[in-house]
Amino acid sequence: MKNKAVILLSGGLDSATTLAIAQAQNFQCYALSFNYSQRHKIEIMAAKKIAADNHVSEHKILDIDLTQIGGSALTDSSIDVPDYPTQGIPTTYVPARNTIFLSFALAYAETLSASDIFIGVNAVDYSGYPDCRPEYIKAFQNLAKLATRASVEEENIVIHTPLINMSKAEIIKKALELDAKLESTISCYQPDDSGRACGVCDSCQLRRNGFKNAGIEDPTQYVSR
Amino acid sequence: MKNKAVILLSGGLDSATTLAIAQAQNFQCYALSFNYSQRHKIEIMAAKKIAADNHVSEHKILDIDLTQIGGSALTDSSIDVPDYPTQGIPTTYVPARNTIFLSFALAYAETLSASDIFIGVNAVDYSGYPDCRPEYIKAFQNLAKLATRASVEEENIVIHTPLINMSKAEIIKKALELDAKLESTISCYQPDDSGRACGVCDSCQLRRNGFKNAGIEDPTQYVSR
Repeated sequence: MKNKAVILLSGGLDSATTLAIAQAQNFQCYALSFNYSQRHKIEIMAAKKIAADNHVSEHKILDIDLTQIGGSALTDSSIDVPDYPTQGIPTTYVPARNTIFLSFALAYAETLSASDIFIGVNAVDYSGYPDCRPEYIKAFQNLAKLATRASVEEENIVIHTPLINMSKAEIIKKALELDAKLESTISCYQPDDSGRACGVCDSCQLRRNGFKNAGIEDPTQYVSR
Repeated sequence: MKNKAVILLSGGLDSATTLAIAQAQNFQCYALSFNYSQRHKIEIMAAKKIAADNHVSEHKILDIDLTQIGGSALTDSSIDVPDYPTQGIPTTYVPARNTIFLSFALAYAETLSASDIFIGVNAVDYSGYPDCRPEYIKAFQNLAKLATRASVEEENIVIHTPLINMSKAEIIKKALELDAKLESTISCYQPDDSGRACGVCDSCQLRRNGFKNAGIEDPTQYVSR
């Protein structure tokens, strides 16, 4: 019998690749996405398609309205998404987002009796978000060992971050090797209604440069070339 | 100028006392409660009254429907609340609840530029929930040091747990000393529509025994005496 794993699935390139890696490692995959009233809510449609195409055991989409907290260009419409590159941590950083997402993943894993959680964080070609750094993930791993019923029964929940040390070009090559359908993914923070990417935000730029550096044709439709 | 602090306020005895302690320590208090579709949703009314009576700077009530995850007598109506005492971790344990609550507290603190979070966890007269133990809180403190924009700017968010080593009787005495209005609090997991406590769940029993051991008259209206 396969071991169950919870996969955080945003609908972007990294999480789609992470799902493909978990499946290649023979996990029975449960995808978890969030409708957090993000500016690029259209990514949830991408997540749905990716989850369905990959025949995950379940795809849970949780409603947690982070505009109730705000503090980010992605959760407060009065803050603009900046053009890339920016100085320091960009305003697209959402306060404590990965901690919130991983907390729900922990709860979901616990109810499934799953011992594994996959998250596609990356600390090479990334926006400098504090909650993508290896030391942050290590601290969450340490918390996960103590936070649940399983921890009292001395079982261990493991946080997997298969992309953390990979460049975007390496991630794209890995995705193609595993036949992940990157044309279904949406990375842009401000796509238009038809899902076309802006081409100028940090997430678009990281994606564009990744395809370029990998020497692979980018299937993404960008508004700005 | 006072330092800002986020106080997790459930509407129960412990969190009301924790708020009184934070105010006595001269923090400017921001209360945070959750409508997580809990069985005892009436506790939110208690939280509102406590927040208003104590003139907090803001009281935020976030909607996060944990019935989407379930796995607890408090978030799945098909699981009964057990009578006290129970063996092992009771079914009223909500998977990863404190991790979820603290994650949102972290996000809220970050947007407020607050460096302090108060949570009324207790590891003496408690139900054995894993996420109330000192080692769990220590791990979350370690995570908080790395999880936010502040962490990159080398500021530190501190998690305060003033009740963690106190007995319920000691908490009640502290509350009275600080003039916290315990008659406004609701501890019961299954109060009736008028807010009367069941008297038999673990939370009621811990409260009843606390007043008894403190030698203080219990103002709570119980259905079962």
